Amino acid sequence: MIQKTELRTILLRISYDGTRFNGWQKQLHKGVETFRTVQGEIEKALAVIHKHPVPLFGSGRTDAGVHARGQAAHFQTDIVRMEAASFIPALNSLLPQDIRITEATHTAGTLHARFSSKERTYRYFLLCRQTAFADELPYCWHIRRTPCMVALNEMAACLKGEQDFTVFAAAGDKSESKCRCIYEAHFFRQASYLVFEITANAFLWKMVRSITGTLLQYEQQQKTAADIRYAVQSKDRRYAGVTAPPQGLFLWSIAYPENLLTPEPL
Amino acid sequence: MIQKTELRTILLRISYDGTRFNGWQKQLHKGVETFRTVQGEIEKALAVIHKHPVPLFGSGRTDAGVHARGQAAHFQTDIVRMEAASFIPALNSLLPQDIRITEATHTAGTLHARFSSKERTYRYFLLCRQTAFADELPYCWHIRRTPCMVALNEMAACLKGEQDFTVFAAAGDKSESKCRCIYEAHFFRQASYLVFEITANAFLWKMVRSITGTLLQYEQQQKTAADIRYAVQSKDRRYAGVTAPPQGLFLWSIAYPENLLTPEPL
Repeated sequence: MIQKTELRTILLRISYDGTRFNGWQKQLHKGVETFRTVQGEIEKALAVIHKHPVPLFGSGRTDAGVHARGQAAHFQTDIVRMEAASFIPALNSLLPQDIRITEATHTAGTLHARFSSKERTYRYFLLCRQTAFADELPYCWHIRRTPCMVALNEMAACLKGEQDFTVFAAAGDKSESKCRCIYEAHFFRQASYLVFEITANAFLWKMVRSITGTLLQYEQQQKTAADIRYAVQSKDRRYAGVTAPPQGLFLWSIAYPENLLTPEPL
Repeated sequence: MIQKTELRTILLRISYDGTRFNGWQKQLHKGVETFRTVQGEIEKALAVIHKHPVPLFGSGRTDAGVHARGQAAHFQTDIVRMEAASFIPALNSLLPQDIRITEATHTAGTLHARFSSKERTYRYFLLCRQTAFADELPYCWHIRRTPCMVALNEMAACLKGEQDFTVFAAAGDKSESKCRCIYEAHFFRQASYLVFEITANAFLWKMVRSITGTLLQYEQQQKTAADIRYAVQSKDRRYAGVTAPPQGLFLWSIAYPENLLTPEPL
């Protein structure tokens, strides 16, 4: 039998429209929330359900304006008589429309949304059409021109593998090592969009936006895969191009080891 | 030669995200704009370009929260040295991101965006999936269930032709005649969306949302085409179902007679 004192670990899958958030991470100034953040809003809803504060741990931060289709975050609940899936309607009824919980599952107690994650996938949406519709603009970078997808994919392929990505790290990145392992990086078409999908074990701060902006700039300057390889090897920020704007970026999914997604037998 | 005093008629095609607008129509209270409206924002931009007020005439109003991909509106310009197409970047640079001008053309002087229009097409987007993503919700009605498209299309087909649509007119509709001619009305699938497209010579106030809500409600209640025919013939509002919410509706396109889309030869 489950004891009242036993805590269950619940993993949430979260979708948000980043437009009106100052990013994922809660920001306190003298104990007061200063900005509207995704973590802050969900913790408020969790506190209502639990009648006490419940900390929420995200898989990682996203910057102001960045969206998510599959952010992941975990919390520990002391509520015994509640199916994990019941947190979906319970939270959604308390949350604003620009945050939607899409899944809630009971996982192994040792799962940590950030430290247990093995793969993170982002998608970046580029709108390659002269005129944009107003409902498209909050979710893409409107570049108008249609870049050469073959050239972009040749360059993207050079990013795969474990490498030092200092060239794509934002100035304020605090990671000790700038080594990350990119498993997949490619462009594909979807109606009027060119979509860049990238999967890695983890990313440096603003790395996806820096890679996206750099690849597009290199393609426009008719540079090649060799130039991208050289830029990475240089470990020099000056070889990076512009940083693509936040509103085209979606945190698409987070993968965890299968064994952690199943709760321990009672 | 064009005289400075000659006025050219310019037709705009306009896309807007209706979320943060109190509808299309400018609302003045004691000469002051009381709400943010699409017409109000575009007239402000036109006044900047012309250095004097320029009235803008829309093809029709849209309600608060309703979007547009192809609203049409005309104005008369006294600026001689400006290609019609140059109004696109000029206006877009002054307008907020949730309004985008997609076309600007020089038309016959007799064209009036409202009175010359011959067909108006709306699309209503229904999201038929259990969970919605946050970026989808502002542009659809999240109905979760998947209605029977065959049943819906049988009912929609009964709406075609010239009929008295009193049953679908909102209480405040001020039209003298409630007769309108529906040229086309059908549902089609687009990824997770069920899309209702309807074309008519004109619509009564909130008519498309009333039709959409009624068709869905009738389908759920297993009513048939005969019931819709009866509802229309009744001319009685009590046979109408719920009015579908505004955020699923897009004013999709407005058609004009070909001869009015070409300016008169000089």
